[in-house]
Order: sequence, then structure tokens, then C-alpha cells
Amino acid sequence: MNNSNKIAIYPGTFDPITNGHIDVIERAAQIFDKVYVVVAINSKKATLFNEDERSFLAQESLKNITNVEVVRSHTLTVEFAKSVGANTILRGIRAVTDFEYEFQIALMNRKLEPNIHTLFLLPNEKYTYLNSSIIRELARYHQDISEFVPEIVAEQITKKFV
Amino acid sequence: MNNSNKIAIYPGTFDPITNGHIDVIERAAQIFDKVYVVVAINSKKATLFNEDERSFLAQESLKNITNVEVVRSHTLTVEFAKSVGANTILRGIRAVTDFEYEFQIALMNRKLEPNIHTLFLLPNEKYTYLNSSIIRELARYHQDISEFVPEIVAEQITKKFV
Amino acid sequence: MNNSNKIAIYPGTFDPITNGHIDVIERAAQIFDKVYVVVAINSKKATLFNEDERSFLAQESLKNITNVEVVRSHTLTVEFAKSVGANTILRGIRAVTDFEYEFQIALMNRKLEPNIHTLFLLPNEKYTYLNSSIIRELARYHQDISEFVPEIVAEQITKKFV
Amino acid sequence: MNNSNKIAIYPGTFDPITNGHIDVIERAAQIFDKVYVVVAINSKKATLFNEDERSFLAQESLKNITNVEVVRSHTLTVEFAKSVGANTILRGIRAVTDFEYEFQIALMNRKLEPNIHTLFLLPNEKYTYLNSSIIRELARYHQDISEFVPEIVAEQITKKFV
Amino acid sequence: MNNSNKIAIYPGTFDPITNGHIDVIERAAQIFDKVYVVVAINSKKATLFNEDERSFLAQESLKNITNVEVVRSHTLTVEFAKSVGANTILRGIRAVTDFEYEFQIALMNRKLEPNIHTLFLLPNEKYTYLNSSIIRELARYHQDISEFVPEIVAEQITKKFV
Amino acid sequence: MNNSNKIAIYPGTFDPITNGHIDVIERAAQIFDKVYVVVAINSKKATLFNEDERSFLAQESLKNITNVEVVRSHTLTVEFAKSVGANTILRGIRAVTDFEYEFQIALMNRKLEPNIHTLFLLPNEKYTYLNSSIIRELARYHQDISEFVPEIVAEQITKKFV
Repeated sequence: MNNSNKIAIYPGTFDPITNGHIDVIERAAQIFDKVYVVVAINSKKATLFNEDERSFLAQESLKNITNVEVVRSHTLTVEFAKSVGANTILRGIRAVTDFEYEFQIALMNRKLEPNIHTLFLLPNEKYTYLNSSIIRELARYHQDISEFVPEIVAEQITKKFV
Repeated sequence: MNNSNKIAIYPGTFDPITNGHIDVIERAAQIFDKVYVVVAINSKKATLFNEDERSFLAQESLKNITNVEVVRSHTLTVEFAKSVGANTILRGIRAVTDFEYEFQIALMNRKLEPNIHTLFLLPNEKYTYLNSSIIRELARYHQDISEFVPEIVAEQITKKFV
Repeated sequence: MNNSNKIAIYPGTFDPITNGHIDVIERAAQIFDKVYVVVAINSKKATLFNEDERSFLAQESLKNITNVEVVRSHTLTVEFAKSVGANTILRGIRAVTDFEYEFQIALMNRKLEPNIHTLFLLPNEKYTYLNSSIIRELARYHQDISEFVPEIVAEQITKKFV
Repeated sequence: MNNSNKIAIYPGTFDPITNGHIDVIERAAQIFDKVYVVVAINSKKATLFNEDERSFLAQESLKNITNVEVVRSHTLTVEFAKSVGANTILRGIRAVTDFEYEFQIALMNRKLEPNIHTLFLLPNEKYTYLNSSIIRELARYHQDISEFVPEIVAEQITKKFV
Repeated sequence: MNNSNKIAIYPGTFDPITNGHIDVIERAAQIFDKVYVVVAINSKKATLFNEDERSFLAQESLKNITNVEVVRSHTLTVEFAKSVGANTILRGIRAVTDFEYEFQIALMNRKLEPNIHTLFLLPNEKYTYLNSSIIRELARYHQDISEFVPEIVAEQITKKFV
Repeated sequence: MNNSNKIAIYPGTFDPITNGHIDVIERAAQIFDKVYVVVAINSKKATLFNEDERSFLAQESLKNITNVEVVRSHTLTVEFAKSVGANTILRGIRAVTDFEYEFQIALMNRKLEPNIHTLFLLPNEKYTYLNSSIIRELARYHQDISEFVPEIVAEQITKKFV
């Protein structure tokens, strides 16, 4: 038996968190001892939900998975991984265009920190069509999104488009 | 601290094993407690090296990584994973076309065994151009391949093309 | 003989309509009894031509195809399709990156309305290089674009870049 | 109301027909007045099921859709389309690599017969991982495939791998 | 003025040469002082036309371009390039899947000979759908292919499928 | 021996020039007699470095390659090519998504000027992960980028993010 904990981080904007993200996180929690869900704070990028809201929605949606913790980061992904002792960055990929962008980021991260590895997971195929931007678009047209996001997210997003 | 070992399998034909495979395996060995390198035996597929040779070359090339074990399998990948208590299948991806094929296999494997997850790693970008088929082609033309494969593989492959 | 009319919609921004769009519409008009060309009105997206101009240019360019009608929509694509009794959404695809984006939209639309189907057509290969954004760029440099757009579009676009 | 029937053909090898094919055919039957499912006979290609078996399995699986007819063809796709008065060829696409191959075939078919159009449909995303070759592979390992193919196909394929 | 000739090679199977190949070669001949069209001889690959026929058809089709020479090679591409003093390998690409395969070959060739460069050209978009394998398929069904290949090729290929 | 000089242009934004660009330019300088590095001036696009800075950094980084000249252009790429007597436009491609965009631009340029050809080169695979936008992002977080850009660029970029 190995004594060391296996720690991974799962970074993203989570604007807002969707069932597709949660599907990836649930799988990750089965593979690793601890998974940090890292809400990236990037002042250059306009978001629908602010920093506090994005963290809160992720936290509420994941509170039942004991080895998952939601945190915020204002630094580079690899810097954050080091700071919590993680040697693995997790990313979900759904499509070829995702893959190419992720590929470049992963190679650059390896260049910066050769001992931190990027692993890719596939979300359930029923979430192929799902991303935060489509959710925001549907909410803007007052469509029912309760099938795609946690209940707390569905509640909060309707308040943004009254 | 979590008591359970993290076990992953890395299946492939390994005809023969290359430095690209070894790069992926070395990363995997840093993430998981135990990595099984599974030499797939598929009677329908013609190979340059036979079952014994492919296993032997992988074994020799990996003997210095203590938490890696080379094994053979005549069954479906998910069946083998279950039989050794692994909940993770590892695959290297280098290119978009790789990715689409791997994506289909991974989704089918999830359908067959929802609790076994497929994770993708990127080999070092200096191995982007490298695959077993290119190695066989170079050896056929008596090119020097010592930079691309372990020494034992370079030795054995030249005997195939005298 | 089937009694029901086959109705399809072809949504887009049409900023401005090009010969590539018209090629797709002409094919669609040979397959369906009625094709609605839906000029999407999206207040968030800055366009070169305004809502009235985009509709007018499409209308003028298509006035000779009797079973095509140009309309405007401020709502979701599937909502509009239902409102005119169409069970088919048509989209042109020219490239792999087009395809992935269209794929996500189509899956989401199917989720919202399972009985509305998305069908993809290929424009003539001579229009592979053609899109509205390239047309606007060429016009900005006062290039001759008469080969790529209807005459009325060529006339109107030059007035935008005097 | 338009007097002419809308006729489409859906060509393929169907070795064997899967639930993914049937999903596409059901959608097509909602759009067109008549859909011919064309079992392609190509003496150069080795198949698990012979010509009679592939036709029989398709026929049995589709007998409840009244406007679908299963036929065989020994000729080019566009030739067959002309012979039954169809101006539309339907193809399912699931992935980028599918798309590129289909794209080339569609452009060549248009060159041969400019008035016959190729339209692409997406199968349900739950069939993304599904193709006839994976079905044959699973059956070879005696896996349960009843979720992926019609009952009659599941019965017949097990007889091939006793 | 530079004194050294610019020499490029354009390798391929040419089974048979098509108008798409010729389009690429004509462009290459405008850029380089000398272009060698290298008919690759690979005993492992079954071809419709034998070595003599493929060379003859290429030669006849290109005899009017003075700075193009058709040659044969039984060796690796980079070896051949060195033997004629060429520092450039030319390849046509039409599609994403082409591109990935060509990418791997090009990186391996650079590894073998860092001073030999691979350059990619696009054939005219009207040849996007065109490749030797589609030509052979059309000829097998006795279709008219005179628009896609030189006259001499159209003549010779019909003799293969009487 | 051919008397005419082989002239190529390599257009880009160069905001800032990276080692990936320089790798492509060094290869180009081995193939062509003269290579113009064309700093594109596009008033619509916000850049980190202004027109003067981007030109200066390119010039300084390339001053040791005798047949390379850094110039600026306010016009269309094909117009500039004609103005310096170049019949070749060079572009680096690293990824499939690059490729599709470049493909469209290249086909449009050919339409505008049929006798100007676009050729694609691959940068060294160790620069696959590298582009100007990643460099700017790293500099923003005060990371060491001296491995990825010329010394003069590393110096100047740190001044932008004090």
C-alpha cells in the first residue's frame, strides 16, 4: 500500500457549474484521494456570475462529495497545483477543438512544471452538447435548464435574466 | 490518508514498445500506485513481434520502474481491468485522429463498465511523430532508430530485417 | 403521395448574404416545399449591416426562388421552427471546426425539441473559402467582391467603406 | 401544397444494422415521404453477414416504419438514387473523421449528379460510440449487445461466434 | 541573385496521377527551379498500375512542364531528396485527416534529416474531392472520369476494368 | 541555373515574435533567396506592442539572417506580395484548427491572385505549445519566458507588466 495521497486539481471558470462539470468531478473523486475544484479568477474575463457567486454555486453543488473541495485561485494553474501538493491537473474534453486548445495549454504547463501531469477525462456523452455558454444563452431566453444544471444554479441564473 | 491503492492499466499492442510509450508509462507511475502495462493479444492482427517477444521487450524496457508490471491479456480491456482491481484505463493521445478513435472506445468501455474510467495523457511533444508503425518502417530501411526505442528493442528489430 | 408540406428553416446572421448561402438555399429549395431564411436578430452581436439591411439584402437576392421566404426572428431557433410548422433546421458546413460547433448546437436543439431535426448541407466546394467575415474584410480594402456576393450586396457594401 | 413526393435514400453496408442506424432512419422517415435503406453490395469488402443476411436483418428491424423500404444495390449511390427518383442521399455523421470522408464522397457525388444532394444527420448522442465494427468486436467476446442492436440482430450475431 | 538552384521533390504513389496532383505540380514548378516527381515503389502495397505504368502515366501527363522530371525511388523519401540535392519535400493537403498523417511523416523526416524541409501546398478547391482511390472506384463502375485525370490516364484505366 | 530570385513573404502580427516564428523563418531562409517578414498593421486589432515595437523586436531578433528583411504592411497580403515581386506566401501551422483557418485564407488569396501560392511549414515540434498569446499570458504572471522568445523580447515584455 502506498502512503501518499493522490491529489488532483480541476481548474475552470465555472460560470456557472453544470451537470457536465459535476459528472467529471464525480469520476475524478473515484480515482483520486482528493480533488480540488479550482475556480479561476481572471480579472480580464467578463463573467455572468462574480467570483463569490461562482464559488458558492460550485460549493453548494458539490457539498455531498466528501473528498472534493472548492477553492479559488488568482495564479497560474501549475503554481496553484504545487501550492496544494497536487501532481495532476484534470480537464474534461468533449470535442476535437477542445482537445487542440487543451493540448497546447497542457504542453506549456509541462514545460513550466515537468512533474505536474495533465490528464483528460470524457464527460458522459449525454453532456456533449453542454457548456456554460449555452446554459447562459438558454437562460437569457427563459428556457427550462433544470435538466442541465444543479437546482441551486437554475434558481440563481433566473434572477440574472428577469 | 486513503487506504486503497490506486491501480491503472495501460493497454496496447506494443509492436514494439517505443520511447513514446515509456514516457507515458513513467508519468503514469508517478500518478498511480500501480500501473499494469497490458500487452493485448489479438489473433486477428498481424504483428512483427509475436506475443512472447512483445511482452519480453516491454518487460526489459520497464524493469527499473518498480510499480509497473507487464502482463498479457486475451480478453476485453474492461474485463482485464476488473480482474486486477483497476478502475482506470490510461491511453496516450498525440493527435486529433487518435482522439476520435479513442473517444469511441472510451465511451463504449464506460457503457460496459460505468465504474471504470478512461484517462488520457499526452506524451512528450518530442514523441509526437513516433509510433510503432513508423519504427517498423524505419527498421525495414535499416535506419538508425536508437533515439526512438530502448536499446533492447533496437537490437531485436534489426534481426527482423537482415 | 403525402399531403403534408415539407417545411425547413435556414437560420443565420447574413451580414451580408453571400453566394455560398444562396448555393445552400437553392439546394434546400429543391428538397423542401418551403424554406424560411431566418435572419437572426441578436442585440448582443455587433453587425456591419443592421436588421433592416440584412433582411432587405437577403430578400432581394432570393426573390426569384418562389418557395423561399425571408423572415426575422428574435427568439430561439427551435421556437421559431415550431411557430412556422417546420420540423427541419438546415445548416451549411464547410469545415471541421464549423462541424463541431454546429454539432453542439444541433444536439442542444434536439434536447429542447426532439421532433425538430437538424440537417447539414455542403455548399459548392468553390465557396469553401467564403464567409461573411472575409467579404467584409475584402470590402474594407476596396477589393472587387462581385464574384462572391449578389450584385445588390456588392453595391451596398461599398457604401459602408467609403 | 406540393404534389411531388420527397424521396431520400440512406445507403450503407449494415453489417449489421444497429440502433444508431435506426435512430437516423426514424428521423429521416419524419422528414421525407419515402426513405430507401440501401444495402450496398460490394464484392471487394469482406463482411460478417452476407448480402441476404444484411438485407433480412435491416428489413426485420424496420418493418414497423411504413414509409421505409429496404433494398439492395450493386451500383454507384447516385445511379441508384436516380433509378428510384430520389434527389437526396442521407448520411449519419458522428465524428470529425467521419465528416471528412463523407465530405469527399458527397462532393464527388455532386460532381457526378449535380441535382442529387447529400444531407447529413446526427444520430442521438447516446449512439456516438456505436458502430457495426464495435458491435462485431463485442459479439466476438460474447458480450451482451442487446442494448445496441435490434433483438433479431442480437440473436443472429451470437450464432456467428459460437 | 542567388546562384544555387532551388530543387524540390514531390513523392507519391500516383496510382494513377490525377488532375489534383498535376495542379500541385504546376504550382510547384512556378516556385522551384526543378521539381522531381518521385514515384514511390513499395513492394508491400498493392497497386492497380504497376511501377512501369505509374511512371509512364506521370511522365506523359507532365511532359510539357520543362522543369519537372518523373523519377522512381525504392528508398526513404529523405534519402532520395539528398541524392538529387533537394532540400525541400512537397506534399499536397486537402483535409484535416491528411494533415495529421502528413504532420507525423514530416516531423519524422525532419528528425532523420534536419536540413530537408517539408512544405505543404493546397490543390485547387475544385480537386478537394479527388484522389486516386476515388478515381479507381469510378473506373470500376465505368463512369466517365475524363474531367478528373489526363487523357492518357482515362484511356489506360478503362483497359483495367473491361 | 535559373536566373530569377525566389522571393517569399511571411506575414503575421508578431505581438511579439517568438522562437517558434524564428524557427519557421530560419527554415524559409534556407529554401528561398529572400524572405520578407511582414508585420501586419491592422488598426482594428488591439496589440500589446505597438507597430514600432513589433517591427523593432522582429528586426533585432532576425538581424543575423542576411536574406531576411522585416517590413510593415497596411494592405492585403496578396497586394503586398505583388509589390515586392514575391510569388509565395509562407505560413506556419501547428494544429488542425490553425490549418482550417489558414486553408480558407489561402483559398481566398488564390482567388484574388492565382499566381501567388501559399506554402505551409511546420515549426519544430518543441514549439507546438508556443504562440504569442501564451507568451503574453506568462509574462502577465511574471513567469520566466527566456526559453521561448529572443532575449530582446524577454527584456521588453517585462516592462509591459511591472
